[in-house]
Amino acid sequence: MDVIDIIVAKRDGGELTPGQIDWVIDAYTRGDVAEEQMAALNMAIVWRGMSRAEVARWTDAMLRSGDRLDFTGLGRPTTDKHSTGGVGDKITLPLTPAVAACGAAVPQLSGRGLGHTGGTLDKLESIPGWRAEVPPEEMRRLLGEVGAVVCAAGSGLAPADRRLYALRDVTGTVESVPLIAGSIMSKKLAEGTGALVLDVKVGSGAFMKDPAAARELARTMVDIGTDNGVRTVALLTAMDTPLGRRVGNALEVAEAVEVLAGGGPPDVVELTVTLGREMLLAAGMDGAKDPADALRDGSAMDTWRRLIAAQGGDPDAPLPVAAETLEVTAPVSGTLTRLDAHAVGVAAWRLGAGRARKEDRVSPGAGVTLHAKPGDTVRAGTPLLTLHADDPARFPRAAEALEGAYAFDGPDDRLPLVIERIA
Amino acid sequence: MDVIDIIVAKRDGGELTPGQIDWVIDAYTRGDVAEEQMAALNMAIVWRGMSRAEVARWTDAMLRSGDRLDFTGLGRPTTDKHSTGGVGDKITLPLTPAVAACGAAVPQLSGRGLGHTGGTLDKLESIPGWRAEVPPEEMRRLLGEVGAVVCAAGSGLAPADRRLYALRDVTGTVESVPLIAGSIMSKKLAEGTGALVLDVKVGSGAFMKDPAAARELARTMVDIGTDNGVRTVALLTAMDTPLGRRVGNALEVAEAVEVLAGGGPPDVVELTVTLGREMLLAAGMDGAKDPADALRDGSAMDTWRRLIAAQGGDPDAPLPVAAETLEVTAPVSGTLTRLDAHAVGVAAWRLGAGRARKEDRVSPGAGVTLHAKPGDTVRAGTPLLTLHADDPARFPRAAEALEGAYAFDGPDDRLPLVIERIA
Repeated sequence: MDVIDIIVAKRDGGELTPGQIDWVIDAYTRGDVAEEQMAALNMAIVWRGMSRAEVARWTDAMLRSGDRLDFTGLGRPTTDKHSTGGVGDKITLPLTPAVAACGAAVPQLSGRGLGHTGGTLDKLESIPGWRAEVPPEEMRRLLGEVGAVVCAAGSGLAPADRRLYALRDVTGTVESVPLIAGSIMSKKLAEGTGALVLDVKVGSGAFMKDPAAARELARTMVDIGTDNGVRTVALLTAMDTPLGRRVGNALEVAEAVEVLAGGGPPDVVELTVTLGREMLLAAGMDGAKDPADALRDGSAMDTWRRLIAAQGGDPDAPLPVAAETLEVTAPVSGTLTRLDAHAVGVAAWRLGAGRARKEDRVSPGAGVTLHAKPGDTVRAGTPLLTLHADDPARFPRAAEALEGAYAFDGPDDRLPLVIERIA
Repeated sequence: MDVIDIIVAKRDGGELTPGQIDWVIDAYTRGDVAEEQMAALNMAIVWRGMSRAEVARWTDAMLRSGDRLDFTGLGRPTTDKHSTGGVGDKITLPLTPAVAACGAAVPQLSGRGLGHTGGTLDKLESIPGWRAEVPPEEMRRLLGEVGAVVCAAGSGLAPADRRLYALRDVTGTVESVPLIAGSIMSKKLAEGTGALVLDVKVGSGAFMKDPAAARELARTMVDIGTDNGVRTVALLTAMDTPLGRRVGNALEVAEAVEVLAGGGPPDVVELTVTLGREMLLAAGMDGAKDPADALRDGSAMDTWRRLIAAQGGDPDAPLPVAAETLEVTAPVSGTLTRLDAHAVGVAAWRLGAGRARKEDRVSPGAGVTLHAKPGDTVRAGTPLLTLHADDPARFPRAAEALEGAYAFDGPDDRLPLVIERIA
């Protein structure tokens, strides 16, 4: 096999054979295909796309590049959720213990944030003592004892995807539905879950700005999961405005704890319960306890505390707080009709909540508090947002990101929280 | 500037700004843009193309990545020819001394062969003692004293193109009209010629198989040359069958010497004279001696002998001969109507005349002699081709390349030698 033939075949619009796909992923993992050759192939895939058969094989080849965890025989079904990433998206935090409290086991392998969207591991690492690294044998123990584990994917899972993702990130080849779907699904299939719910975000703060592209991504991922024997369903959900009222690592943990205590913002509660029901349904647990009850009766909170403690965290320790705050007040009185998710995400990132490079550290206390959400009425001069940062020098550029990010008394074109279900 | 923004702009069909082009070529040359990023950008260019303004700037940026030779003040105008490469294309050998004998100076920077087409330097290196490396100051002296120099491009000329070409070669991104045009023209502009004639080959043995693509390439290169103040003209010429009757390094030198002696195959003579007249015309030498006369009166041969001797070669030394030959005879009697250029080129390559990798050595005596050309009548059992190789083990695969390469008494669909002129 020759990699140039494979690049040229895709460049000219051809369909790659299973043998070509297996060979190129394997050779790339071994270092026999150079980065520049894979970059050219990736750009050709962005250009020409992949058929359902190609993307299934591509995903499978990446999956086979490493280990696949196996959590059968736990005594309870495994089920998981993956979100394509949004602003203020802390849903994993209340969702994982709520679903575990209903009887399922949730092997949640998460990532760190890059760019304007946060990462679940960064959020949990703001809890003193909590550690993201859990070896596979301890994962199994935690799944049995606590019913859940939230941790970093080990380097043995889909190593081809790991290298490929880093390459796509620096070569302008991230934006390809088959490559995104293959990347997400190879990792999710490697984690060994029996059922999977995909939360595909749509809107300004999402990777996919428009519903048609999000639908295509959702459909592609559902097909891959189904073809690999994992019961997979996808929801298209709104990301035109941030989820909840807090954006930033420790800020979001605090809001998640409010939800686990039976309170919290209605949108966060609704999405947690909706996704939780889908996870149980996908796992075949039709008669299980309802996640809304688990949030209400304290069992989700109990599971949360055990989950955090099992990974070294102190659920009672005070969360980090940023040293400085700046209030942004409403310029007029009226009904807030727009508060742009992308702008708030960029502001939180610039305040220190996110990272520009993989090596950067995040500031656990940095972020944005929202005092009003679209639909709320506000008075001129009252607080609209609070910016949190360790260094006040960060405020001007964050404020700049928020210019034009909100509107009053305009048309109400908010997306419904759950836009569509794809099974 | 950020290279990812530049890749994404081109990927999404945008036009790169002059500043973006200058930056990316410079950063790539300095090593600040990685090979994988340039590979992705190249594939995006294959996909989206480049406007006339973009390709002009791209070429200019590559030109500015290194030195530009300056041969003004020689006392005679400079003019050069570039061929996109063909089978049996030894035209540079008789053409350069013929044009110099008519009063012009020809600074001919040539390359080595890769794949099924030969390289001028490989051909000349079959002459005992001849060396391809000539420093710039000696080039100027030879142009003044002999009127011509045929040598390798120094590493200081268009170094960006040198790196880029090696990258394109291994990433399936060679086939792009703007990238090909930019590569050829940056080198030709760097060599400092005042006038340029492009011989763009069309047909099975050429890089461009069909006239429309060849015309686009020719038009793009003529535009670049004109935009850079070099009087540039292009001829589209036939490469459906080999030029002349000999293919291979020393074999082609011998044929070139026949032409310089006033004989040789009519197609080689005609193309030499036609291109020579265009070179003189482009140099503004309307009333100069005719190249046909220079071939006839021995002045081209005199210049050839001085040209070879000036670079260490012995024009009287016997040329290398391959140790083994194999005759291919005509299977039937009739009129030969097809003798495929690509097949003969591949056969010569496999016999040892060409190289598969840049590091390989070529066999100077290897190649193919053609005993008949399309239009000739042959008798069954008489010699059609002679294969020459140092090692008889090379014959079977060369013969395989020739299967189906010739036809008798079929339709005469030969291309005219000169198809079109683009100025």
